[in-house]
Amino acid sequence: MDLLFLGTSSGAPTRARNVSGLGLLEDSGKGWYLIDCGEATQHQLLRTPLTLHGLRAIFITHVHGDHCYGLPGLLASAGMAGRQEPLDIIAPTAIEGWVRATLEMSQSWLPYELNFHPTESLKEWHSRLLRVEATRLSHRVPSWAYTFTETRPDPRLNVEKLDHDGVPRGPLWGELMRGHNVEHAGRFLRSEDYLLFTRSPQRIVIGGDNDCPELLRDACQNAQLLVHEATYTQAVADAGKANFGHSTAATVAAFAESIQMPNLVLMHFSARYQSAPNRGQSIEDIRAEAGQHYSGQLILAEDLMRLRLNKTGQVERVERHVRYDARASKTNQPDG
Amino acid sequence: MDLLFLGTSSGAPTRARNVSGLGLLEDSGKGWYLIDCGEATQHQLLRTPLTLHGLRAIFITHVHGDHCYGLPGLLASAGMAGRQEPLDIIAPTAIEGWVRATLEMSQSWLPYELNFHPTESLKEWHSRLLRVEATRLSHRVPSWAYTFTETRPDPRLNVEKLDHDGVPRGPLWGELMRGHNVEHAGRFLRSEDYLLFTRSPQRIVIGGDNDCPELLRDACQNAQLLVHEATYTQAVADAGKANFGHSTAATVAAFAESIQMPNLVLMHFSARYQSAPNRGQSIEDIRAEAGQHYSGQLILAEDLMRLRLNKTGQVERVERHVRYDARASKTNQPDG
Repeated sequence: MDLLFLGTSSGAPTRARNVSGLGLLEDSGKGWYLIDCGEATQHQLLRTPLTLHGLRAIFITHVHGDHCYGLPGLLASAGMAGRQEPLDIIAPTAIEGWVRATLEMSQSWLPYELNFHPTESLKEWHSRLLRVEATRLSHRVPSWAYTFTETRPDPRLNVEKLDHDGVPRGPLWGELMRGHNVEHAGRFLRSEDYLLFTRSPQRIVIGGDNDCPELLRDACQNAQLLVHEATYTQAVADAGKANFGHSTAATVAAFAESIQMPNLVLMHFSARYQSAPNRGQSIEDIRAEAGQHYSGQLILAEDLMRLRLNKTGQVERVERHVRYDARASKTNQPDG
Repeated sequence: MDLLFLGTSSGAPTRARNVSGLGLLEDSGKGWYLIDCGEATQHQLLRTPLTLHGLRAIFITHVHGDHCYGLPGLLASAGMAGRQEPLDIIAPTAIEGWVRATLEMSQSWLPYELNFHPTESLKEWHSRLLRVEATRLSHRVPSWAYTFTETRPDPRLNVEKLDHDGVPRGPLWGELMRGHNVEHAGRFLRSEDYLLFTRSPQRIVIGGDNDCPELLRDACQNAQLLVHEATYTQAVADAGKANFGHSTAATVAAFAESIQMPNLVLMHFSARYQSAPNRGQSIEDIRAEAGQHYSGQLILAEDLMRLRLNKTGQVERVERHVRYDARASKTNQPDG
C-alpha cells in the first residue's frame, strides 16, 4: 500500500501545504482511497497520477471544513469527467445532508450514485483487497481514525485441500486464486477456503484530529504504520497558544514509542511551522520534539510526498509521480 | 481600477487555470472586491498581494459550483486570520442559506458578520469609491453581470460655490474634498454639492455565465471595459459539442464590436483550450475567432494576470505581484 499526501496543513492552506487530504493506493496500483477532502483536494490530484475514475471510496474523519470542504467540487468534477461507477463515502452523518444540499443548491446532478455510510454506526467497510474499521477519537467535534487492513496478503493456493476435495486443475483454480467463488459439479466453492496467506497483513492507522493518541492503542495492534496529526509542539501548547483538541509532537511520539509502533508519520501542522525558520519556529521543532520521544522510523509528511509500506513492514519514500500532461486533455467534460 | 484574475477555467480546474474568481482593486490600492469564488480561490490569493482583511465585498454571479464552492473556506480562513470587519456578500438568494448551513455543519463560527444582499432585488450597492449594479443574463440558472462604476473620478473643489455659500477655507474644505459631509454654523454641507469631477467615471462590466451578450447593451453604455465568458469557439458550439447556456468567442466579440466597446477581456474557457495545441485545438482558436469579429483591444485572461484600466480608458497589463512571504507567517491563526 502507498500513501500520497495531498494536504498536510491544519486549518487553512499555506503556499507550501494544502488542508487535509490523503490518498491510499492499492498494491495493484489501479484503485485508491481518499481520507479527508479539504478544499482544493481535486486541485492537488491534478499534480499526481491519481484519477477520479480510480477512486474507490472516500473516508471523512470529522466535519471541520479543512477536512471536507473539497467534497462537492471533487464529486462534481468526477461527474464532469464522466464517472459512472457508484462511490462509497464513509463519513459522519452530517456530511451526507450537507453534500446533497450543496449539490442541489448549485443544481449539480451527478451521473453516478453516492452511497453514504455513517461513521457513527460503521462496523467495517470492505473492498476486494482491504478492510476498513473506524475508531472514535477525542476532538472538539466527533472525530475518527480509520484502520486499513489488507485482506489478501500474498495468497497461494492450498493445493493439498484442492486435490483432497477433487477440484480439477485448470481455470477453476485461477478463479479461486483471484478471490472469486465458483460453482463446480453442483458444489459451491469459496475462494477463501482454498487460499493460504503467506505473511502478516499490512495495516495502516490514519487518525483524524485527536488530542488523545492513547485511544488508538487497540487499533494499532499489528499495524506497521501510524499516521497522526501533530499540530503543535508541546512548548507551544504549554504556552497556551494552541487551541484545544489537538495532539503535540511529544504526545503522539510518546504514544507510538509505548506501543513500539515501527513507523510514525506526522501531519496536520500549524501554519506557524514553515520550512524556513520564522519567529524562531520551524517544522524542525516538530521533528526534534518527536525524535526525543520516539525511536522508530519518524517521517514528517509533506504535500505530494509518497510513501510505500512494503511487504516486510518497512516504510520507504517513493519518487514523486508528476503528471505533466494536463488532466483536462484526457476528458471531454462539459462546462459549468 | 485593476483586475486580478484568480481563475479563468470553466467547470473544473486544470493545471493552468482555476475555476472562476476575479479580484477588482480600488484605485487606492487598499481595498478590493471579489467577483465569484470558485473552489481554491483562497489558495490563489496566496499567490497575490490581496489579503482577506482588505476584501470589501463579494459578488456572486450565479449558483453553479465553479463560481461559489470556494466561499465557505475563504470565509473561514478570513475568520482564522482575525478579520472582524463585517463583510457584504451580494449573491443569488440560495447562496446565503447554503453558506450559513455549511458553516453550521462544520461548526465554524466567524468572528465577523456576514451581510447578504440578494442579487434578485438589488437596486445598487455602494462603497465610498464605487457603485455596483446588477444585470440579469441568460443561462441554465439565473445569472447576473455586475457593473462597477467609479463614483469620485478625480474630484476638485468647486471653489466658486464654496465662496458663494460662505464656507470658510481650511479643514472644512479638506473634509468636503475627501467626500465627507460636514456641519458648519448650523448648516449641513453635502460633499457632493461642492465637488466637480474632472473626467468621465471609469466603468467595468463583468458578466457571469451567459448565452446572450446582447442583454448587456444598456449596462455597457459609457463602460470602457467588458469582461465576459467565451467558453467555446463557434465551431465547437455548432458541432453540438458544447452545453447550452454559454457564449462563443464569435458572439461576444461581435456584440462588443456592435457597441464599439474599446476593451474586451475574455475568460471562462473550456478545458479543451490549452496553451499547447491538443487534438488540433488551442486557446489561440478563441483569440483568432474573436479577432475576426472585433477591432478593439482584445485580451484573453490568464490566471494571475493583472490588468489596469487607466484614467484615459486604456487597459494595460501590470506586472505580476507575487508575495514570496508565506501568508501564514503574517497571521497567528488557530487550527481546524
